[in-house]
Order: sequence, then C-alpha cells, then structure tokens
Amino acid sequence: MLIVQKFGGSSVANAERIKRCAGRIKECYDKGNAMVIVLSAQGDTTDDLIEKAREISQTPSRREMDMLLSTGEQISVALMSIALQELGVPAVSLNAVQAGIVTTAAHSNARFKKIKTERIIAELDKKNIVVITGFQGITESGDITTLGRGGSDTTAVALAASLNADICEIYTDVEGVFTADPRAVRTARKLDEISYDEMLELACLGAKVLEKRSVELAKKYNISLVVRSSMSNASGTTVKAQSALKPMLVSGVAVDKDVARVSITSISNVPGAASTIFSLLAKNRISVDIILQSIGRASTLKDISFTVAKSDLNETMQILKDNQAYISYKDISSDDSIAKLSVVGAGMESNSGIAADFFTALSAAGVNIEMIATSEIKISVLVNSNDADKGAIAAHNKFINSTTLGTTITQKEER
Amino acid sequence: MLIVQKFGGSSVANAERIKRCAGRIKECYDKGNAMVIVLSAQGDTTDDLIEKAREISQTPSRREMDMLLSTGEQISVALMSIALQELGVPAVSLNAVQAGIVTTAAHSNARFKKIKTERIIAELDKKNIVVITGFQGITESGDITTLGRGGSDTTAVALAASLNADICEIYTDVEGVFTADPRAVRTARKLDEISYDEMLELACLGAKVLEKRSVELAKKYNISLVVRSSMSNASGTTVKAQSALKPMLVSGVAVDKDVARVSITSISNVPGAASTIFSLLAKNRISVDIILQSIGRASTLKDISFTVAKSDLNETMQILKDNQAYISYKDISSDDSIAKLSVVGAGMESNSGIAADFFTALSAAGVNIEMIATSEIKISVLVNSNDADKGAIAAHNKFINSTTLGTTITQKEER
Repeated sequence: MLIVQKFGGSSVANAERIKRCAGRIKECYDKGNAMVIVLSAQGDTTDDLIEKAREISQTPSRREMDMLLSTGEQISVALMSIALQELGVPAVSLNAVQAGIVTTAAHSNARFKKIKTERIIAELDKKNIVVITGFQGITESGDITTLGRGGSDTTAVALAASLNADICEIYTDVEGVFTADPRAVRTARKLDEISYDEMLELACLGAKVLEKRSVELAKKYNISLVVRSSMSNASGTTVKAQSALKPMLVSGVAVDKDVARVSITSISNVPGAASTIFSLLAKNRISVDIILQSIGRASTLKDISFTVAKSDLNETMQILKDNQAYISYKDISSDDSIAKLSVVGAGMESNSGIAADFFTALSAAGVNIEMIATSEIKISVLVNSNDADKGAIAAHNKFINSTTLGTTITQKEER
Repeated sequence: MLIVQKFGGSSVANAERIKRCAGRIKECYDKGNAMVIVLSAQGDTTDDLIEKAREISQTPSRREMDMLLSTGEQISVALMSIALQELGVPAVSLNAVQAGIVTTAAHSNARFKKIKTERIIAELDKKNIVVITGFQGITESGDITTLGRGGSDTTAVALAASLNADICEIYTDVEGVFTADPRAVRTARKLDEISYDEMLELACLGAKVLEKRSVELAKKYNISLVVRSSMSNASGTTVKAQSALKPMLVSGVAVDKDVARVSITSISNVPGAASTIFSLLAKNRISVDIILQSIGRASTLKDISFTVAKSDLNETMQILKDNQAYISYKDISSDDSIAKLSVVGAGMESNSGIAADFFTALSAAGVNIEMIATSEIKISVLVNSNDADKGAIAAHNKFINSTTLGTTITQKEER
C-alpha cells in the first residue's frame, strides 16, 4: 500500500515526539508499505518566526513572510529524516521545490496548481520514506508560497490524490472527530466514521480537526481520510464518501468562539448597499460569515449585521468607518463577546423539526439566540459567548446522547 | 557601481542589528549603486539547529544536516528584505535555488560549480536590492548543500566574481585585519591593505577574519575585498593583489589555539607507514596540518607527530588505535594543550634571518618551541597553549612595533 501520513506541529514539537512519530512510521514501513510523510512546523516555530518579523515591521510583505515561515517545515522534515535514519530506515526529506508542489502566486494563501511527482516517485522507487514539507509550495517562477491555515492537511490530501495513495492519515493531538468538544461537553463521543459533507460543515463551523480545503480536496478525489492521535494507538475517525452507518438527525455539535458581530444601522435603503459593504471587505480579504439584513426603524432605512473572525474585527471596523459617507449609514457597532453554536447532520435534510427542537433546547437552557443561519445539513445560531458551552451541552443532550452516534470536534493545531 | 556586501551572523543577530545593517544598505543604495547582499544565519541559529539534530542522532546524515542548517540563512534574508522594505527600499530575498548557486554534491563541504545569475540580474534590473543566502547551494539535481566554514564569505566573493561586481565588502564584528589579535597583543594595529597571499597564509593559520577559500577565490578573480565592521564607520582593510605599501619582513602575527598534537612512536621503519596513516585520516575527512617525521630510538623504528583540529582529536585517536596492527606502531599519545604561533610576511621570501630572529625572540620570552613548519611567506611554531599569547607579543614587538605596518587578526563569527 502507498500511505500518506501527516503529522501536525504538536506531534513533532520536540526530539522526543519526533522519535515517537518516527517509530510509528517505521512500524508501518516495516510492514512493506510505501510511505510519504507530510509535516507541519514544530510547535511554536511559526509563532516565533512571525514574532521575529513583527519586531522589524508591522506590515511585512507576504512574499517575504512565506520565505520566512517556510523554514519551519523544512526544519521538521530534516529532523524527521534524521530520526528515521537513526532507526535504520532509509528516508529523505524534500521541501516544496524538491517535491514539485506548484501553487498559485497568492502568497500566504496559495492554491495548488499541480504536483510534479517525478522526484517523489523516484525516491519511493529507491524504497525511501519520503518526508515532505507541508503548508508550502512554489510558484511557476520558483518563489516560495504558503497555503494558509490548515495547509499541511491540504498538502497531505493533495499528495495522496496525486500519488493515488491508498489512504491518507492525519495524525494530530486528538483521537479523532467527536460529537462535541469533550472539554465543553463531557458526554461527547468519538465517531468511527463521518461523511465528507458533514465534516465540511463542521470544518466551516470552527471545529478544527481538519481544515475545510483539505476535506473538499479529499471529497473531490475520493481520498479516505483517517484522523487519529499521534500519542495513542486508538483507531481514529474515517472521513469518507458515505458513512456506512445510518445518517443521524444530528451527528455533531460545534462551537466557534472566534467570531465577532458587526452591526451597521440606518443604511440608506437604496439598491446596492450590501454589495458596497461586502465588496469593500472582500477587497481587503476579510471573510464574512453569517449575514442578516433587516428593515430598520424607518421604511427608507435598513440594518445589516454580519460576523467576521475576531482577528479581522479591528480592520473591518476601520474600513467601514473610513467609508461611512460612501456606504451612507448612520451608526455602526460591534460585539466580540459572541459565539457560533451549530448542529450538523446529514439526516437533517429530510427532517424539518430539527430547528424547532434546537431552539427549544436552547431556550430551556436559558440561552438567548441573537442570529440564525441554516444550510441543508446544519443550523447555526449566534449566542453570547458565555452561553456557548451551556448551549452545546443542551444540544448534545437533545440530539446525540439519546441516540447511538453523532459528530463534533475539539480544537487542534492549525497548520 | 555594483556592490556585493556580506553581513555575518553577529551583524544580523537580532532585529535591532538587522535594522542597523538595513540602514547602511539603504544609504549605499540611495547613492545609485546596485546592491547584492549576502547573509549568514543569525547569531546562534546554526548552533541551535545542530543541537536539535544532536538530540535525535549523534551521526545525522550530511544531506539532512544541510537541509536543516540552510534554513538559518533563509530566515536572515527574509528578515533583511522585510527590514529594507520597511525603510521604503525595494528588496527581494533569494535562497540558493532561486539565486542559481550550483555546487558539487559534497554535503557540508560543497564547492561552487557555477552561478546561474539570470534571476539575480532580472531582480537588479528591476532596481531591487537582492538579498541572498550565504553558505549554501544546490546540486544539479536540486538537493541543498552547504559550503562549510566561512561559506558565506565565499558565497559573497563568488557572486562578486559571477556578477562582475566593482567591490565586495565583508561586514563583520571587527574593524578589519590587525597585525595581531588585539585581545592578546595590546599594541596590535589595523592594516589599511594586505595582499591576497599574506591574507591566505593568515587565514590558514587560524586568523578568522576571512576564510581561506574566499581569499583564494578573490585572488583568482582579482576581486577587491574590503573587511570592515558593521558596528562602526571605520574604513576597514582592503585585501588585493599587491599592497601599495612596501612589503614588510613580517606583516602579521597569528595564534591558532584550535590545534592538538598526535604522536605515534616506534613505527616499523618500512616504506609507506606515513602514507598508511594519512590515507586513513583523509578517508575519514580529518585534515592534518603540521607533520614532523623523525628517526626514533632504534634505527628500524621511526616517530611521526602531526597536528589536527581539537574537534577531530578523539576521532583521530580512535581510528589510529583501531588500526594499530595495520599501521604497526608501538605507542600513541596526544596533547591538546598546544597552540600554533605564526609570523607572516610577503617580505620574508627574500630574507633568511627571520626564522632565527623569531626563535631568538621566543627564547628570550621563555617560550619553548615544540615543532616548526615553514612556507615561503610564513613561519609557524607549536608552543604550549599557555605560552601562545606571550609568544605573540614577543614576535609582534620584535617584527612589527619597530616598523610602520603589519598584519594579524582577531576571532570572528564562522559562517
């Protein structure tokens, strides 16, 4: 079998952990498997490098930041190869240019264009374990790029697709995908399987076991993803096309606390106001999540509320204030003490009572709902951040504890 | 003018120093010069990376060490580009593959094969300051190599030669080339000029302002090298073909304390014993310096003494002991409390009295000579390491303080 394994930053944080991962890799290699390993930067390396840059400039260019940050994964792959060789197994490290990982030129947020796999295949043919830098690529002209949040997971899935691998294992610091964050919901359980679509919704909702793009890519190429812990031998969670299990009404409960709300009130009720606002934000690369538009106090005025990531709030407010006359609104306010609470389930599509049950459960728990957004297989509500865990427990009790299986997720490393 | 400037590890050790160097570079750029900057890894970065590897393996492969260590310079060039951009000057960082620096595949000690300068020239044409990683290259097949000790100086000189630069400035933490180490010899003076040949002898003798290979390369391509401090505006020392000044009998005094002596006694006096010993060491990449062979106690036996770097002593002793029967000797001993004291001068060739004067001066200072080695323009002696500075002062007083100019050198960073 050809197996791609990805180890996150906490799994390779120090010599001891690298050696432990190397031991697992060797075990798998010794069974006769061909192995491609994808690594993130060690523990705090990326943060340390960002801090080095910030000491010099508050606005470092994205190209130079990519040049800087890409060293983190290169350190990891060299150390892992050394650890594997120390165990007597042949290994070779490859960075993005050596592995032929070609991306767009969108520095800090590049997308895959193609993987020129010749070198990787040549090393596999030599029976080498090939240890490849995650999170990074090169442009056609040879500049270094990075893929943004969750990039190493995406690298692993893209390599699995390009190499036609039999399986792609994502090793992390949790044991798999849970029905809810076990730190907030004590009755949360690990799932054995989950579908791509459910995983996608959860990934979008702040459950950080897998980044959304990596799940999208896995779905597109039908790659079986296994999420498991590098610290234990537990079997993990398999993400695949169709869970063999009967779809549940609600398979998981997710909480995202990295969310802030912006409310713009008394906007002139002329066509295009929303377009103006969200075009401005898009131009500044600010992603907007839930949007709520309502007719305001006077019939000629309206209000628009929406959510952004907490880290984007200051910039969002600045942009909107700078453009008050252009947008033509009266007041603006923001609230960063909110959280997004979501329930996800492939079975939801065919059952209209879920929303009502969800809201009832929250109400009974004394949790006030501030905004609502829905899709085919999820319902999200904004609540006060102090109520988020209480709401998650209420939803989990309502939909999951009474049934056999479900889905949600804990925090994990980012890259 | 096209100027190549190299900054060593202590010159870029932290944000403050990087900003200071960036300021100097901008000054030079603003005068209309085209600029290529070559950087070492920051301060202790290389040592930290080596330590990371050592925690995993005592014998990491050279290929993976090169992969690991090359990240140090990449961090430096990214940070310097960010610092330059922060000052409003256009800059771009290039690593070895981007700068087209092709070397042999001798990992950890590679040699230049060629520099494909297209990208560098394209960036210079765009008026960018081009900031390039020193110390590293790539093989024809794209693997990362490093150049060994002093590699960043060599990179700077090689780039100056390839780009036909007008000048190559080596910025370091000393003000230039001195007649002796100012920490040991208080009357030591900075030289304004020194010839390539004198600089070469000094570089070989443990004076570490410039690495030997960089001086050889500068001589070969007739590149004017300027050694100066990144911390002051002093004019530094120019290394060039012929010093405009009349050659001195002795232009510098050098001390090398990184030396250990091995003595093999009572070797069977058959042809090839020396060849056997030094072939064994060469095969293990151990460099031998001064060699002394003498007829021993019995006419059928001889003794051989030689020096190696202190860091190679343990391995040297192990190899020789493992091969005692093969070499056929009776005893072996070593001494790591010695130092090499040398006097260098282009004027020495035509004056036979220097050696006698040197030995007399040492004798008068109470310094015992253990071994002697000479070349056309230098005389080296081995002395007890406790006597080295006393001997340096005696030689400096004898040959230099009585005349107008001379040469020697202080320690500096390595890469």
